[in-house]
Amino acid sequence: MGQLDHVDLDLAVVLHALGDPIRLALVHRMAEDGESACSPDGVDAPRSTLSNHWRILREAGITQTRQIGKARLMTLRRADLDACFPGLLAAVLAAVRR
Amino acid sequence: MGQLDHVDLDLAVVLHALGDPIRLALVHRMAEDGESACSPDGVDAPRSTLSNHWRILREAGITQTRQIGKARLMTLRRADLDACFPGLLAAVLAAVRR
Repeated sequence: MGQLDHVDLDLAVVLHALGDPIRLALVHRMAEDGESACSPDGVDAPRSTLSNHWRILREAGITQTRQIGKARLMTLRRADLDACFPGLLAAVLAAVRR
Repeated sequence: MGQLDHVDLDLAVVLHALGDPIRLALVHRMAEDGESACSPDGVDAPRSTLSNHWRILREAGITQTRQIGKARLMTLRRADLDACFPGLLAAVLAAVRR
């Protein structure tokens, strides 16, 4: 899955990954629901587009993925993000919710 | 100068503008020194490259520019950023300084 260890988290890469309205919507969905399927309700984009956005989030170390049967479920790596960049995810989520 | 009013600040645009190592270095320099010239010490990139990075920061609403003679001096729009996205700039700067 190309999931990163938290020691690899890079601030510029994480900010770049967050810097897109669809990816912010995906991050918001995970924050609200705990986890998200590939094509969550309320995020209107083609599946192939979403797949690319999920890849960018995963490769930046923002999400982790678990497979249940045919479904992939994504969650935020809150602990790793908070350890590397204290307060960043909270500030981003607060701004998304405004 | 294409400077934005703070009501126009967009979270995805601001995060995308911050999501680059050179632009993070420029933001760090302004935070440390109060303002920055176009080619600050310690940021190693061609002037044309820096000019493009400054444009992205300015158009995102992260910086404002004043002209003194031939020099342009850039400052962070801290108040506007803090008003729109409380805690975001502080979290980013703390992460840059680590």
